[in-house]
Amino acid sequence: MIRGPYIAVVGGGDDLPASTRRAAREVGRAIAEAGAVLVCGGLGGVMEAACRGAQEGGGLTVGILPGRDRAEANRYVDVAVPTGLGEVRNALVVRAADAVVALSGEYGTLSEIALALQAGIPVVGLDTWELGHGGRPVEAVVLAQSPAQAVELALGLAKRF
Amino acid sequence: MIRGPYIAVVGGGDDLPASTRRAAREVGRAIAEAGAVLVCGGLGGVMEAACRGAQEGGGLTVGILPGRDRAEANRYVDVAVPTGLGEVRNALVVRAADAVVALSGEYGTLSEIALALQAGIPVVGLDTWELGHGGRPVEAVVLAQSPAQAVELALGLAKRF
Amino acid sequence: MIRGPYIAVVGGGDDLPASTRRAAREVGRAIAEAGAVLVCGGLGGVMEAACRGAQEGGGLTVGILPGRDRAEANRYVDVAVPTGLGEVRNALVVRAADAVVALSGEYGTLSEIALALQAGIPVVGLDTWELGHGGRPVEAVVLAQSPAQAVELALGLAKRF
Amino acid sequence: MIRGPYIAVVGGGDDLPASTRRAAREVGRAIAEAGAVLVCGGLGGVMEAACRGAQEGGGLTVGILPGRDRAEANRYVDVAVPTGLGEVRNALVVRAADAVVALSGEYGTLSEIALALQAGIPVVGLDTWELGHGGRPVEAVVLAQSPAQAVELALGLAKRF
Repeated sequence: MIRGPYIAVVGGGDDLPASTRRAAREVGRAIAEAGAVLVCGGLGGVMEAACRGAQEGGGLTVGILPGRDRAEANRYVDVAVPTGLGEVRNALVVRAADAVVALSGEYGTLSEIALALQAGIPVVGLDTWELGHGGRPVEAVVLAQSPAQAVELALGLAKRF
Repeated sequence: MIRGPYIAVVGGGDDLPASTRRAAREVGRAIAEAGAVLVCGGLGGVMEAACRGAQEGGGLTVGILPGRDRAEANRYVDVAVPTGLGEVRNALVVRAADAVVALSGEYGTLSEIALALQAGIPVVGLDTWELGHGGRPVEAVVLAQSPAQAVELALGLAKRF
Repeated sequence: MIRGPYIAVVGGGDDLPASTRRAAREVGRAIAEAGAVLVCGGLGGVMEAACRGAQEGGGLTVGILPGRDRAEANRYVDVAVPTGLGEVRNALVVRAADAVVALSGEYGTLSEIALALQAGIPVVGLDTWELGHGGRPVEAVVLAQSPAQAVELALGLAKRF
Repeated sequence: MIRGPYIAVVGGGDDLPASTRRAAREVGRAIAEAGAVLVCGGLGGVMEAACRGAQEGGGLTVGILPGRDRAEANRYVDVAVPTGLGEVRNALVVRAADAVVALSGEYGTLSEIALALQAGIPVVGLDTWELGHGGRPVEAVVLAQSPAQAVELALGLAKRF
């Protein structure tokens, strides 16, 4: 088996600012350079940029797709797993991972953060959702200041997983 | 078929303050009195209190369970659907509903809020998760001030759904 | 909770001979008269006929739908659970049941028979798939000669479940 | 992306006769030598033998696991996707494939054959389940006489897929 850990990268699929795209690519590259497998939802935006970075870093990328058609995977996905489950597959992206890095993102990303936290899988965030309850912040996501640090934190937490 | 709408009630399962339990029961009762079907995850806490209220109001309650054993349903669930999917069933609770009322809650509740928003299903919140991005609040959840108002808002949004 | 057991009725959805439709309706009626809940895939053909029979018998019917739209349920479904999972929902129909009655059917029905057997849920068959291996029949499905007998066998096996 | 097609190998997990194990290994090797990706349920028996053969042939193997723990994958799985879905994952093994080769097998294998046929994915069988209805055989599975022929048939059907 390809030696782990498996790190999921979750984030927005569309209309990404160039800075987020760049960060996702750096995250992917750092995951690959650490010898980890990159798991994601297989589509565009953060997923595509992260896969691109991972391929540049010589790593392996896995895309767990919402639809039934393998062709919907971005071109940097090595292994595409079509599921036909729609957003139900969000939970499978998370379950396939030893740690999650969340970048920016919309509601789907928020669901992946929440599902990971529910399942006890550590989540590192880079410019992503902020959570609160009763007017106070809930600091369940480990905050990173850079792509390199995000991956370093995720690998450290995954190792303890 | 039992005339809808179907309203999902999501919220914490354990160690609930008495005030939250009371609010959940009132939400359940109001759903039943409006002739709507109550859908939930079928376990304890908010789910149990809401089902209890719905039964008191003469309504029907559906519990979509994470495990395989129907016996894990709380005793106010009328129709129990064991799934064996663990937290993957969160997405199914949401998909079964025309609108969602979220009360308080932990990460599972947060995932249900996010999955509903991703799927375009309206969410009404009562003392629940607060969301933000980039230091600014994201007001995707419609806030209610009382159980009665929460149900009224959910029914109104479900009707437009 | 509505007292069980829950009996799933699985079978073909289209172009049903009148005799199969009649048998499915009798199966549904017998399930209802025994006080059991009828679970099915919620669509037409055997599912619709069985739900119709169950309603005539004063019972409750649950339809676990492949699509996301509650409106695809047949009109004899009391509680409709849209899943959006396509044929992945076959496994959920089976998991929701204490025993399965299979009538006739296509590949979807065959998958439900197989998934039930894999999960240890008893299956009673009425003019349905025949299984073999190495040229010899595999008698895993309990054969019934009439709708009444099918339900009687299913209830007996469910009670031991 | 790794160029397809993706061929699923499904079959029994335990107490395999040596001849079946040998056939599965040959199937795996032939899949790899054709440049196809091998998908399976990731466990022992036919799955393990097929993965072993595929690795010997220089191919890539993907295991879609029923449990949540990547460690349950056999040691010839390159990319392990834990799902925690139990036998619900059978449908995902099939959906991930362009064609299915079934060897021998128990009820889980039968469900995978049926789910593939329902989804329109071609199935080639080698000493596997025989299907009938009304006393007549149903010849939905394309029969092969050897591992090499099974893979050749699967690739031909997958290409037309």
